[in-house]
Amino acid sequence: MARPQIVTLMTDFGTAGPFVAAMKGVILRICPRAEIIDISHEIPAHDLLAGALVLARAVPHFPPNTVHIVVVDPGVGTNRAILVGKFGDQTVIFPDNGVISLLERALPLGDIRICRNLPQSPNYISNTFHGRDIMAPLAAQILNGLNISTLGPRPATYKLFELPNPTVEDNRITGQVMYVDRFGNLITNISGELARQVGGRLLNVTTICNGKNAGPLTTAYGFVEKNSPLVLFNSTDMIELAVNQGRAVDLLEAEVGSPVVMTME
Amino acid sequence: MARPQIVTLMTDFGTAGPFVAAMKGVILRICPRAEIIDISHEIPAHDLLAGALVLARAVPHFPPNTVHIVVVDPGVGTNRAILVGKFGDQTVIFPDNGVISLLERALPLGDIRICRNLPQSPNYISNTFHGRDIMAPLAAQILNGLNISTLGPRPATYKLFELPNPTVEDNRITGQVMYVDRFGNLITNISGELARQVGGRLLNVTTICNGKNAGPLTTAYGFVEKNSPLVLFNSTDMIELAVNQGRAVDLLEAEVGSPVVMTME
Amino acid sequence: MARPQIVTLMTDFGTAGPFVAAMKGVILRICPRAEIIDISHEIPAHDLLAGALVLARAVPHFPPNTVHIVVVDPGVGTNRAILVGKFGDQTVIFPDNGVISLLERALPLGDIRICRNLPQSPNYISNTFHGRDIMAPLAAQILNGLNISTLGPRPATYKLFELPNPTVEDNRITGQVMYVDRFGNLITNISGELARQVGGRLLNVTTICNGKNAGPLTTAYGFVEKNSPLVLFNSTDMIELAVNQGRAVDLLEAEVGSPVVMTME
Repeated sequence: MARPQIVTLMTDFGTAGPFVAAMKGVILRICPRAEIIDISHEIPAHDLLAGALVLARAVPHFPPNTVHIVVVDPGVGTNRAILVGKFGDQTVIFPDNGVISLLERALPLGDIRICRNLPQSPNYISNTFHGRDIMAPLAAQILNGLNISTLGPRPATYKLFELPNPTVEDNRITGQVMYVDRFGNLITNISGELARQVGGRLLNVTTICNGKNAGPLTTAYGFVEKNSPLVLFNSTDMIELAVNQGRAVDLLEAEVGSPVVMTME
Repeated sequence: MARPQIVTLMTDFGTAGPFVAAMKGVILRICPRAEIIDISHEIPAHDLLAGALVLARAVPHFPPNTVHIVVVDPGVGTNRAILVGKFGDQTVIFPDNGVISLLERALPLGDIRICRNLPQSPNYISNTFHGRDIMAPLAAQILNGLNISTLGPRPATYKLFELPNPTVEDNRITGQVMYVDRFGNLITNISGELARQVGGRLLNVTTICNGKNAGPLTTAYGFVEKNSPLVLFNSTDMIELAVNQGRAVDLLEAEVGSPVVMTME
Repeated sequence: MARPQIVTLMTDFGTAGPFVAAMKGVILRICPRAEIIDISHEIPAHDLLAGALVLARAVPHFPPNTVHIVVVDPGVGTNRAILVGKFGDQTVIFPDNGVISLLERALPLGDIRICRNLPQSPNYISNTFHGRDIMAPLAAQILNGLNISTLGPRPATYKLFELPNPTVEDNRITGQVMYVDRFGNLITNISGELARQVGGRLLNVTTICNGKNAGPLTTAYGFVEKNSPLVLFNSTDMIELAVNQGRAVDLLEAEVGSPVVMTME
């Protein structure tokens, strides 16, 4: 039996318009056996940081040889390159704008190429929709067996964000909110690993976000009263501020960038 | 040819973040031939009643042996059990929090088990994301042939909601709004069967919601003037209050829980 | 190997409720090998023009013999017909309400039939959910090999919208905004072909929308300053008004129907 040929899409297109479906049609015309999975189409428009975070949290879970298309691409049609890289056992097609910054920390980079010798596209290559006209046909051809080393030269370098890193002073870690999820939970840039390193058994931890006490460090949302705040290690071992069945983003009046200070005693 | 292996997901995760995609990646790593269908990821956060209603309306339509994963789970990480049950010819993995209450009325329960002897997860089992770390790998293993009777003992009992039932007095049925759909239609807890039982040929029916006349009983939205209210038996034979090309939820100033009184003469 | 059997869905149902999933379950029960692709479920409720635009932009990209189901259908349950037509190499099932108007201009019509001799539905045929009870089973049967010529007679005629056409006077084209996408870009009814015909090399073009200057004609969003307006030929060669990393709909205070005047000098 032919192995499954999985391709994922992550865009900031939303799902109200025809854009995502056009890409899927193009993929299926070239690779009819493709199984198409949506990572997200609700990345806020042009939000490279949110895109980078979602990409890094989703891609590593997929089977080997999955091809991922990333279209958060405010520079479409300018001279920014489209790159294709192997990250671990995954293949990612992405615009060279930094959206890869967090995945690049999570999975080891293998081959990476500038997409120059493009496979034929079923569409005229527009200046505004490279997702449909370049990336979708390219992904389908890779699923069909195209070797990415034929696509173009290795880039001399590629864009990565400066990401804010937490700082440690004595028994205090200072970080910030990086992402707000649908539940209003605040995901920080402080890893569980760092917290354990600084705080040992973490018996007495105070967490302040925006000057407000973010509640006790515990292990599950349901271990504090309903509508009370709590701090936990989330499913990617990052410090997360939450409210049991409520919204930490509202209770703590926080947003991406809000400071988070953990003091271990 | 191998039979298709269908798995559905119903969550309150939304689709902006990486959570749904992470579950899909985990499933496809273990069962590469899985066909994954989204029931909904827009269940309001922690809304067990909305989850129960959507689940009951969707699951019975799927082919035999479909596996359904339900993650509306405010108690994740506490000692609430994860259950797997056969309902009719469907298999459902769900937290023991009552979200199964309406499906349990719609399809006969077969075997049901507490998920204790879990198959190996590709991830460390977090306290906040059992959808990815327990339910997704479990669903994939069931698609691969795992017998649910090996997972653990039958539960002595499991949680079901108290659901509001309509009451009948003479020729009057009193119920309430249970769900508001995207069109602003109000789905009640009064079945067509009950209405016909009380009202016979239903020639002269007055329906009052929140003290406002909800319009004539008819058979399709287009049979009243645009922006006028109407009452009909919906696609699951429940009494539904609607407005032709408008929003009953606004016109009748109603919400989940608003009283609905039908008088048959 | 069996060829893939692709079916798409376009509805105004949203994804919060059970409606889309119910249709998918029905399709998979009848055609277990179906690959189901969502075009969109976020067509604004009852918005036939938006539905027509999205349909025309998405359908032509799919592989031959794809079956498309369209449920933007305020007249469900009345005597409006359900039609099935071949447009190019695509098969489309749609209510006879004009939603096909733009696809009908894009792809040549082949056979078209009124759906009268319906295949058996797994559900009682409701008056409010023909997507589940008529269209989904019909699509699945077509995937299974049903010939559409057996479904009923050819319609004498079918509904098409009057669509606003741009007008030309000397070196001036007057059109209007037809669609606002997720980025707030304004897609007009002025084609690139018409603009080139009137304006030749388009060296000196002024575009006014709602009395406001919509910026220079250029080839990509990134070729003007951030938050500045621009005009370009979009990915379907239509004139589009945009703002680099901003929202033209807000900057130009425009909406569907707003006038757009291009003057070529």
